[in-house]
Parts: sequence; C-alpha cells; structure tokens
Amino acid sequence: MKIITVKSAGFCFGVKRAIDIAFKIAKAKRQGVYTLGPIIHNPQVVDKLKEQGIIPLEDFRSRKDIKALIIRTHGIPLSLSQEISSLGFEIIDATCPFVKKAQYYAKLLSEEGYQVVILGEKNHPEVKGIMSYANDVIIVDLKTPLPKLKSKVGIVVQTTQSLEALKTLLSETIIHAKEIKVYNTICNSTALRLKETETIARKVDIMIVVGGKNSANTTQLTRFCKSLPVPTYHIETSSEIKEEWIKGVKRLGITAGASTPEWIIKDICKNLSDRGG
Amino acid sequence: MKIITVKSAGFCFGVKRAIDIAFKIAKAKRQGVYTLGPIIHNPQVVDKLKEQGIIPLEDFRSRKDIKALIIRTHGIPLSLSQEISSLGFEIIDATCPFVKKAQYYAKLLSEEGYQVVILGEKNHPEVKGIMSYANDVIIVDLKTPLPKLKSKVGIVVQTTQSLEALKTLLSETIIHAKEIKVYNTICNSTALRLKETETIARKVDIMIVVGGKNSANTTQLTRFCKSLPVPTYHIETSSEIKEEWIKGVKRLGITAGASTPEWIIKDICKNLSDRGG
Repeated sequence: MKIITVKSAGFCFGVKRAIDIAFKIAKAKRQGVYTLGPIIHNPQVVDKLKEQGIIPLEDFRSRKDIKALIIRTHGIPLSLSQEISSLGFEIIDATCPFVKKAQYYAKLLSEEGYQVVILGEKNHPEVKGIMSYANDVIIVDLKTPLPKLKSKVGIVVQTTQSLEALKTLLSETIIHAKEIKVYNTICNSTALRLKETETIARKVDIMIVVGGKNSANTTQLTRFCKSLPVPTYHIETSSEIKEEWIKGVKRLGITAGASTPEWIIKDICKNLSDRGG
Repeated sequence: MKIITVKSAGFCFGVKRAIDIAFKIAKAKRQGVYTLGPIIHNPQVVDKLKEQGIIPLEDFRSRKDIKALIIRTHGIPLSLSQEISSLGFEIIDATCPFVKKAQYYAKLLSEEGYQVVILGEKNHPEVKGIMSYANDVIIVDLKTPLPKLKSKVGIVVQTTQSLEALKTLLSETIIHAKEIKVYNTICNSTALRLKETETIARKVDIMIVVGGKNSANTTQLTRFCKSLPVPTYHIETSSEIKEEWIKGVKRLGITAGASTPEWIIKDICKNLSDRGG
C-alpha cells in the first residue's frame, strides 16, 4: 500500500506559533499559567500540555492562583481582554498574527466611520473577537440574504473564509454601497490545504483525515474529501484505524487540519505502514 | 401608429446643468466667452449656442479676445485647467458634478497612497480628466487582461460604466490586492435609460434613436436596440426620417442620448405623428 501525505497537512503558522509559546512556558516551569479554553481544537495536544502543567480554564473569575493566561489563536473579545487585565492577570497573547490584523482593521474601519461588515460565522470565536473591535458592525455568512447596508461599508474577513465568498460579498455590496474599503484578511493556508488535499484525494482509494473531532477545519476537510467523492475517515489517533478500511487499498492519502501536530500524523503513517505498507 | 417615447430619453442632470449655464451666459450677452470644444456631442445644440454668440474653440492659445472658457460636462485634465488659469482666462466650470466627484476621489485615493485604477475607456475625455488627478494611475476596460496590480488599490469609475463591469473588476482585483478602496462613481442615468429603452424596444416594431452621430452614449443606445433585435434608426433631426421605415408600423419607440435636447425629441414626435399617427 502506498501512503501519500498532503504536504501542507497539519499546523499552520499561527497554530505552530501558539503551541511553541505554550510549550516554552511549560518548559520554564512557570507557575499559575493557564490557557483560556483549550489552546487549539486538538485533545491530544491539550492533554500533552496538561501533563506539563498548562491547564485550560473556562472560568478564570473564581481562581485565586492565576498569574497569567495564554490567549489562543482565535483571539478573544476586547472586553474579555480588558477584564483579564483588570483582575491583574498577565496576558500571554498567542492570537494568530493574521487574526490580530483582522482585529486591527476592524478597529481602523470603525474609527474611519465605516459600517463594518465581517464575512464569517457569527458563532466562531475568531469572529466574536474581531467584531468586538468595531462599533457599527454586522456579520454576514452569505447563507442568508444581505441586510440593508449603509453607503460607506468596510469589510474584513474571517481568516479561514474562501476568496469566492469574498468575491460574492463584494458583488452584492457594491449594488448598494457608494464606498467600500475592503481588507482581504483571508489566510492562504486553508485554501492551500484544501487544494493540495484535493490533488491527493483524486489519486487514492481512501483518505484518512487526522485531527480533533472538535476542529472546524478538520471537519471541513473530511466533508470536502467525502464530496469528491472518496471514501474518507476522520480520526484523532492511530488507535481508531480499522483493518477493514485498508483491505485491498493500493493507495491511501493522509491529510490533517491546521490544529493537528506532526507527531500524530507521523504516528498514523507508521501505524498504517506497519499494517499494509 | 402609436408612438411611445422613453421616459428618461434626453438630457441627463449634468448635461442639463451645463446647457443652462451656457444659455444663461448667452442671454447675458457676455463678450469673449467660448466653450472649450463643443459643449456637448449634439451639433444642433452647438449651432443654437453659436447663433447666440457662444462659439466652441479647440485652440485657445492663440486667441486674444478670450475672457472666459466654459468647461464641458466631461471635464478636463488638471494641467489644462492650470494652463487656462495661467493665461488669465476665467474658467466657467460646467463639468458634471458626478464627474467632479470621480476627479476628487481619484485625487484622494492617490494622496492616501493607493494605486488608482480607473474603470473606463482610456481615450474618453472624462477618463483623461479623472486620471490627471492621480499620480500612480492605470486605466482598465476589462477588454484586455488586468495588468499586475499593487497590494493597495483604489478604484474609481467612469460615470457611464455598468455595474456589472465594476463587479467583474472587483472580483479580479481582490485576487491580488490585499486592500481595496472603491468609490462607485457610476451615474445611474445611463443604466436607467438603457433599462427603460429595452422595455419599450421589446414592445414596438421599430425604434428611432435621437442624438448626435458623434455622441458615444447615443451610439451605444442604437447598438443596444439593434442587438435585441429591433429595427433601429439613429437620426439627429426629423429631416432624416424616411417614409419606408414607418410603412405598416403599428408601434414606434423613441429614445435619445443624454446630450439630446427635448425640443429635437418633440419635433421628431410631431413629424412622425403628422406622417402616420
């Protein structure tokens, strides 16, 4: 069985940076450092950090022993960040720099008097963070018709959105708005991973998608492979691999979400090689 | 024969304003006032103004008797305007206020550091005027592929362009630019005239398009009606009407370009009524 791994599978720039920050702090054995929620949507990485003393917290308000909180890649709303500071906790900001940019542009557009339109999913933590930086703001996802917009519209984009969605939004906005200022804050890594995954998926008998079951972009990869269509299995670790999946399989493709660490991908590759390679 | 005239046929807001300015000056019998080129692309209106002493000039540099120059609706390049002033001539600015806006936005975008992209025809006087207000500027017409753009792009639009063309430009620009600021400087009167002309043209046996043979937007109306297809005749005055055109015609539609005065449209209606109405 030939195993082909997608080149851009696994950690994106922002996730790698955040995980590096967290493990560096763990290594320094600093006390009282927590992550605000799981640092990424990958239970195995979160468990590994826990073992090294970096625990995810949902409620930081009743804890007395907090010295610092690590902010995850998606970022947090401005008010939350202000609350954390007001409690005297240090903020270790692992927000993805591309998300930071989107937050900054939302603030700038707002200050310049634009009605800020964010293209993204309204319940996603990244979007909740970005929107907190603007005053007059709406979220659009193109699944529902565009609401009535003002004549001066500023656009920023959730980093994982597609360019096609942004083009559609621009076409719809220019019908009504007299002035649009748009910052294309889309991060290319999502599109690149999808594109490379498609190339491999079209050449193989089955696809294995590796990553947290709670990871939006891993789930998106699974849905995408299934739609091609290719028989596709979404797993977190090698223990989930079933013998019948690979029976008679000549070519097997592996891809992984942006929150999947390399050691898990490697372990799965090795396990598959041992079975049928 | 039933004659139906398109509601929005004839003078648009900007042309009406310019002609009012010129006739007001003629009425006041001010001496030494010329128009810089024909004030609009309609020979009959230009002749009428000539009779009242307002002569179009192409070369103002060798004339000694000029006191003031009337600038036509399309506007002029900034350098020309500066040259006229430096010769001590008064400028009577009949530039369409919508074109003025496009000039202003081109200047603003340029000052804000954007590469200015003008969607329009590069040889059109309006575009030549607008582009003179920006430093780093290119003209695109979508007939040829988009050149390589910078990452910060500002867009203004020739007032007679279509919204569809602007949507296409935005879709192509957002592939490369990280930031776009666009001012939709399209004037609705062109789109409205085309839309109303189509509605009428689909109901009649022949269409008469009235306006200067040198008028771009009248020629565009003619081409548009012919493409529907409807038998279409482009005339400047009633003297051009041919009996065989209206033989057996039950319903006749009339439309006119933005530079066609009402008195010519009315004269043609009357002439046609007398013949077959």
